[in-house]
Amino acid sequence: MQTIERWDIFEISLHGRSDGNPFTDYTVTATFQGENEEKTIEGFYDGEGIYRIRFMPSFEGIYHYRIEGTFQNELTEREQLTGSFTAVPAGENNHGPVRVADQVRLRYEDGSCYYSIGTTCYAWANQTLELQEQTLETLKNSPFNKIRFCFFPKFYLYNTKEPLTHPFEHGHGEGLNPSLIEINQKKQIHFPGMPHAEPNLDFNYMRPNPAHFRRYDERIRQLRDMGIEADIILMHPYDRWGNILMDAASCDNYLRYVVARYGAYRNVWWSLANEYDLIRTKSVADWERYGELVQEKDPYQHLRSIHNCGDFYDHSRPWITHCSLQRTDFYRTTEDTGIYMEKYRKPVVWDEICYEGNLELGWGNITGQELVRRFWEGMLRGGHCGHGETFLAENEILWWSHGGLLKGESTPRLRFLLDILKEVPGGYIKEGQGIFDETVGIAANQKYEKTEGFQPPSAIPTSGYEIHYLGIMQPACRDLYLPEDRHFQVDIIDTWEMTITDAGVHSGITKIKMPGRQYMAIRIIEVS
Amino acid sequence: MQTIERWDIFEISLHGRSDGNPFTDYTVTATFQGENEEKTIEGFYDGEGIYRIRFMPSFEGIYHYRIEGTFQNELTEREQLTGSFTAVPAGENNHGPVRVADQVRLRYEDGSCYYSIGTTCYAWANQTLELQEQTLETLKNSPFNKIRFCFFPKFYLYNTKEPLTHPFEHGHGEGLNPSLIEINQKKQIHFPGMPHAEPNLDFNYMRPNPAHFRRYDERIRQLRDMGIEADIILMHPYDRWGNILMDAASCDNYLRYVVARYGAYRNVWWSLANEYDLIRTKSVADWERYGELVQEKDPYQHLRSIHNCGDFYDHSRPWITHCSLQRTDFYRTTEDTGIYMEKYRKPVVWDEICYEGNLELGWGNITGQELVRRFWEGMLRGGHCGHGETFLAENEILWWSHGGLLKGESTPRLRFLLDILKEVPGGYIKEGQGIFDETVGIAANQKYEKTEGFQPPSAIPTSGYEIHYLGIMQPACRDLYLPEDRHFQVDIIDTWEMTITDAGVHSGITKIKMPGRQYMAIRIIEVS
Repeated sequence: MQTIERWDIFEISLHGRSDGNPFTDYTVTATFQGENEEKTIEGFYDGEGIYRIRFMPSFEGIYHYRIEGTFQNELTEREQLTGSFTAVPAGENNHGPVRVADQVRLRYEDGSCYYSIGTTCYAWANQTLELQEQTLETLKNSPFNKIRFCFFPKFYLYNTKEPLTHPFEHGHGEGLNPSLIEINQKKQIHFPGMPHAEPNLDFNYMRPNPAHFRRYDERIRQLRDMGIEADIILMHPYDRWGNILMDAASCDNYLRYVVARYGAYRNVWWSLANEYDLIRTKSVADWERYGELVQEKDPYQHLRSIHNCGDFYDHSRPWITHCSLQRTDFYRTTEDTGIYMEKYRKPVVWDEICYEGNLELGWGNITGQELVRRFWEGMLRGGHCGHGETFLAENEILWWSHGGLLKGESTPRLRFLLDILKEVPGGYIKEGQGIFDETVGIAANQKYEKTEGFQPPSAIPTSGYEIHYLGIMQPACRDLYLPEDRHFQVDIIDTWEMTITDAGVHSGITKIKMPGRQYMAIRIIEVS
Repeated sequence: MQTIERWDIFEISLHGRSDGNPFTDYTVTATFQGENEEKTIEGFYDGEGIYRIRFMPSFEGIYHYRIEGTFQNELTEREQLTGSFTAVPAGENNHGPVRVADQVRLRYEDGSCYYSIGTTCYAWANQTLELQEQTLETLKNSPFNKIRFCFFPKFYLYNTKEPLTHPFEHGHGEGLNPSLIEINQKKQIHFPGMPHAEPNLDFNYMRPNPAHFRRYDERIRQLRDMGIEADIILMHPYDRWGNILMDAASCDNYLRYVVARYGAYRNVWWSLANEYDLIRTKSVADWERYGELVQEKDPYQHLRSIHNCGDFYDHSRPWITHCSLQRTDFYRTTEDTGIYMEKYRKPVVWDEICYEGNLELGWGNITGQELVRRFWEGMLRGGHCGHGETFLAENEILWWSHGGLLKGESTPRLRFLLDILKEVPGGYIKEGQGIFDETVGIAANQKYEKTEGFQPPSAIPTSGYEIHYLGIMQPACRDLYLPEDRHFQVDIIDTWEMTITDAGVHSGITKIKMPGRQYMAIRIIEVS
């Protein structure tokens, strides 16, 4: 009997009807029955008369399946429509899908901790194959365990080329909503520096292009095998090919298609939109329908989010699993992690907090130091952060959109941060109480008593494990208020130079010497 | 006839009774009559039987005066109680007191523009004479045109020595309110690192110490002659000598005394308190009484403010002339200038925004770069900012409290900023409209039309003079949206390196090269 790993993909392909519109006219489903679960899975049309069904077993053991549907003219032999396989234990780097845990955290389904250190390459999978390979090689040597990218091609500053393939087959505008064309012309955002181009609406939006999505099959699998979550952006505003002008039936068909096609990839997250609020052709009612559709259709309940440019979407909506945020304040970014965690009681993922680079615009020109600082501020508070790079280049290949090579200084520092977080007792960190000038992360599973009011000493480590982060400040010494009857190992962490310096074991009120530089943290670990 | 400059001090000294308590028991006033004003001025007792009356003429011309009061046992010869003098035009560096202008700005009484570039040396005037002289020498070579300091001695971190003199004569606690001692013990803030010391309450709080205040006469005059405003802090929480435990009569007597003594110095500002909210022995009713008393008693209506640690005082109170602010958000500081200017419709003076230094605590350990950035953010928005330095030193002399020498890097950059602001056409700058990632200051007297909404180009210079500040961002180029039918000189200002680079004359949409460094500004000046 065929075997696959738990959380791997069991795929069935079958010949069927190619007349009419196979993307909409016929059904194909399979019901999988294992010892611990029974799931009915929709298949999808992959062109040239081929239908595919992909299933991800969430448990080990024997699974039996039965295929049904109208996709075939004549009944195939019964033995071809049923079958079975065995799901064997997951391999070393297979932890299952990422799930919400403890309301505000993320955890792999096998129970392993997951801290998201994301990056963004919106259009990497639509670049030349050579560039895509380079991007994968770069990712392999990076700390990133999530990447945000789009199915739809992108048209914007430094993004003016045609994509390798289009998400819909060529056609004559079938599935467009004509009234949205006018709305789009009147209201669509045109940012500074954005070139003008006449829209190309020569597609049939009721027919997804299998050649386009087949390319994504491989890329998402490759990411999966590198341990990188694929935070797939389903819609976005930077369009000149009509992909934000589709009518409701085309949109729903597209969403059903990608859920059927990619749901079995354990590393998939659904990002309904990048900057939903800039897509003036869609209303909240549309987003609600999309969100609920994806929620209903996805048999695996992958993470679902919707990302803002200006105002946040209402992240309390039940179909949203976590807050995918772009900073809305220009000066306070990830410092607000606790505010939103408290407000929404969901994981907070800062997917855009300004990229490291030297671009002309203020979403893409901070230093590596500042980006790393924003990561520390967000992660110590129990949030997750996203990286990106926007260094101007003569070839106009910018990591943020195209992938390629990393040029900035932040990346090794993000690995250093992740390595420190992985050592937190119990696996998770959460925001503790510091005095006014520090961000304190404490071991999430340990005892912690908040002290009252403004009175110091207010930075007593009660959790047994604390990291006090000092950001842009450059103290040359620091007073620690340690309990007198316990002992603590104190380490000075230089988050930029990536050094950890032993500052000794201490008890009681202790003045420790600091290097008088920015981006320092003090780690306090109780010793017996 | 004796002559003095307009806005200089005409002083009369007379012998009088020294029995009883001359600070409270007797009156001494003089009425000054000039062509344009008539003012009745209270005098003050200066010890050893000497009473003084100080008058600042606000106009040129002949003044006649007449002295009255109960301060003498027997009537002095009539000719001694009347007299006259001539106020001649002000000298080159004498612009009169600083006044509120156009609701939110500050202007010297002679009409000259005033941008406050302040500094803070809380206890400088209570240090050794040698150190005081060094502080004055440092100030003389600095850009600072305002300094904040206290009459009362200070007890805090690195401030544990006795002052040179005390503000009240020695005694046995006369004028203390015993119930406040208990309140203070229970509620007074004790910050981390603050040493413990038994309070010394051996003073007579109904008798100001002339030897103490005589020293301040000279210092305030010296500051005045250097063109530096004396932002005098009348009360503060860092006390161990009972100065925050006085009863109402003592407080009022103290305030009347200093108003009578220093009101005639044109450079005096009254700061009712530093960190009023940390003085737990005083209520809002107390502050209101103090504020109204100073407002009533000061014949010259010097600027009046009250400074917070945590929550702002209600700066809409009529006796408050301007907002003297300590940042309340740890990440957003002077970026909020416009918010408070709009809210209170008064000048916004950021007197504490973290000091340059390497102190253990987060109010005193930012880099010079960050302090200068905060100045630019505040000043371009039409606000005023305050500097301070807190570099740890073996001799525990820190500029922020003791004065001495400046060690930081911000000071020359603040002069550079001030020099740029002095060249703004019409003298004043106010906040203009930029795109989301820049702070724009425009000439306050020029035409300015706000564009609607989010649509670029939104950074069109309509005022004829604009500075676009880019803070921590490091763009390697920048698009300017200039009107096509007008011409603009563009300069790249490096606010840290203090260079101004000619980027040519431009019209229309223009991409300009930038150095890809932080702390840059672009100045755009219309040329004919």
